[in-house]
Amino acid sequence: MDIKNILEKIEPLDKEAMKIARDYNDNLVKPIGSLGRLEEIAIKISGITSKLHNQLDKKAIIIMCADNGVYEEGVSTAPQEVTKTQALNFFKGVTGVAVLARQSNIDLKVVDIGIKGELSHPLLIKHKIAHGTKNTAQFPAMTEEQMEDAVLFGFQLVGELKEEGYQIIGTGEMGISNTTTAESIIICLSGCTVEEAVGKGAGLTEALYEHKKDVIRKILKLHNPDHKNPLEVLQKVGGFDIAGLVGCFLGAAYHRIPIVIDGVISASAALVAYALHSTTAEFMLPSHLSEEAGYGRAMECIGIRPYFDLKMRLGEGSGCPFTFYLAEAAVRIVNEMVSFEQGNVDKSKYIDIREEWEI
Amino acid sequence: MDIKNILEKIEPLDKEAMKIARDYNDNLVKPIGSLGRLEEIAIKISGITSKLHNQLDKKAIIIMCADNGVYEEGVSTAPQEVTKTQALNFFKGVTGVAVLARQSNIDLKVVDIGIKGELSHPLLIKHKIAHGTKNTAQFPAMTEEQMEDAVLFGFQLVGELKEEGYQIIGTGEMGISNTTTAESIIICLSGCTVEEAVGKGAGLTEALYEHKKDVIRKILKLHNPDHKNPLEVLQKVGGFDIAGLVGCFLGAAYHRIPIVIDGVISASAALVAYALHSTTAEFMLPSHLSEEAGYGRAMECIGIRPYFDLKMRLGEGSGCPFTFYLAEAAVRIVNEMVSFEQGNVDKSKYIDIREEWEI
Repeated sequence: MDIKNILEKIEPLDKEAMKIARDYNDNLVKPIGSLGRLEEIAIKISGITSKLHNQLDKKAIIIMCADNGVYEEGVSTAPQEVTKTQALNFFKGVTGVAVLARQSNIDLKVVDIGIKGELSHPLLIKHKIAHGTKNTAQFPAMTEEQMEDAVLFGFQLVGELKEEGYQIIGTGEMGISNTTTAESIIICLSGCTVEEAVGKGAGLTEALYEHKKDVIRKILKLHNPDHKNPLEVLQKVGGFDIAGLVGCFLGAAYHRIPIVIDGVISASAALVAYALHSTTAEFMLPSHLSEEAGYGRAMECIGIRPYFDLKMRLGEGSGCPFTFYLAEAAVRIVNEMVSFEQGNVDKSKYIDIREEWEI
Repeated sequence: MDIKNILEKIEPLDKEAMKIARDYNDNLVKPIGSLGRLEEIAIKISGITSKLHNQLDKKAIIIMCADNGVYEEGVSTAPQEVTKTQALNFFKGVTGVAVLARQSNIDLKVVDIGIKGELSHPLLIKHKIAHGTKNTAQFPAMTEEQMEDAVLFGFQLVGELKEEGYQIIGTGEMGISNTTTAESIIICLSGCTVEEAVGKGAGLTEALYEHKKDVIRKILKLHNPDHKNPLEVLQKVGGFDIAGLVGCFLGAAYHRIPIVIDGVISASAALVAYALHSTTAEFMLPSHLSEEAGYGRAMECIGIRPYFDLKMRLGEGSGCPFTFYLAEAAVRIVNEMVSFEQGNVDKSKYIDIREEWEI
């Protein structure tokens, strides 16, 4: 299956199932719509699975790890080897997302999709396309074949996880310099300016911040990718981690499983998927409002508003556990709350406000 | 102990413990400050407990249930008996907050502090001050003695829960017409207009919404409470549920335990506590951005910004579980994440950005 085939087979949410879910929510013992976005989540998940009652017990965050050649341009404060070190630290359970995942019984699926250097761990999913991308300030990040390989791998991985019984997927990444690649993509696809999209990454001084913007301007000038061709943008200025996540977003829509957006890197991948097929957005759930500037631009394009304002900018998929928690709450409300009748509340005594409050 | 004694004994956060917690967070294997408000929560909790490492395993939401005489003015769409019915439904585990509490192993402490009518359940905490307040459109809601009784009861309950080993408290309520009382308080104490503070409650038509605002104008004109005397405001235009929650907020500061604000009713109680002693705010954690207009005004006064944007307007304490989850994540990060050194990341190779990113 190639990317074109995948796109042709993506279907929208099940509107009939969503109507049933909405009516059901409206009859639970609470004012109509009073659980707000929790109800929206439950209805969306019904639209994805075509079922009124859903479970979200088996949860995974895919962490695509890769290095970026653009690191050579000095766009990061962290040394490049941190990508490799942290990839292994995920298994030790001592990174940010690992701690959060353990709290909520979430499995981490750590993928070496292009880390520089050799590493091994029994749980590491190996699909190393190359030892990092090329430096996008001088060359395209990757070849077309490499891009397709990464996208299809992400797509396939989501399919396998669905087969294994996973019910919701989160998107994470680890790759020093990947806010530079993510923001390059967001600028191309959203049409915003460098100033609007570029943030300080996980941590930059003012001088480095100015330098990073200059590097991104150079990258965009050099490649000038066709913004109507999201895969070309991805290939020329992106990264293996982002390409893998694009495949995950396509896979979620194709295999019909809810998928959670984390920070700016994950959002850039979501934006590529959305640009390829806008229906993919129907399968996405946001998480937190990332502190990175480009995040907001990407989310505006996709038309999704985050749930949390936590001032986080860690990446790794660290925003996903919070949305998993919300989504689990949403489906539990449907499964465990009772109707007005079951709750011994006489709905006929209420002044009917249904039409005004329909969500 | 009377309210004056309590206020005299409230002490600020432990600044030394907070400094230790901040330094510790800065040395965990992540960019400085990159976990944003999660780090702020962890630091605040250290300031409350004077300990670096904290646990938040034992969690309770106090649900103050009471009826409001102002119901007679026709300010609600729900029938008054719903207060009583839902108070019992909490024990059946079938209301919104009950489902969310079960998801996260949170105990509900349901208090009859003034429900109209008789009800009993082995787990119901009974402290019925009266069968509902008086109609504030005609009389003060309660006597001074009743107000003090309610406040001191809430204060004492938090002390007992702390004794029992609870580590974090949420504030919930059930009481038909209590957005009217809450918004009356918020208008008095924040100085905002009726238009700015009054929302549609859990559900109102346009016509009822206009009527509700007229009723609140009448209440405020009748009592014209001294806005510099928060207890007078509480007594004249508040409710037993809110008075009980004011006591909870005072108790949290006095007994040094973090306490979570839910929606507009809880926020009105937090505002009374804050007006009585601004240090109480240091022990408060927000939850979601309530859809009720008055919520935002109260939170602005207190100087707290919510974490979640969920468009919820259910009450019951239903926003608290989300903040409990966040707070648990925050303390787990401190307890389980490793330092740069333990994570085999050489911090000396980082470009030092500490000064710019200090949170």
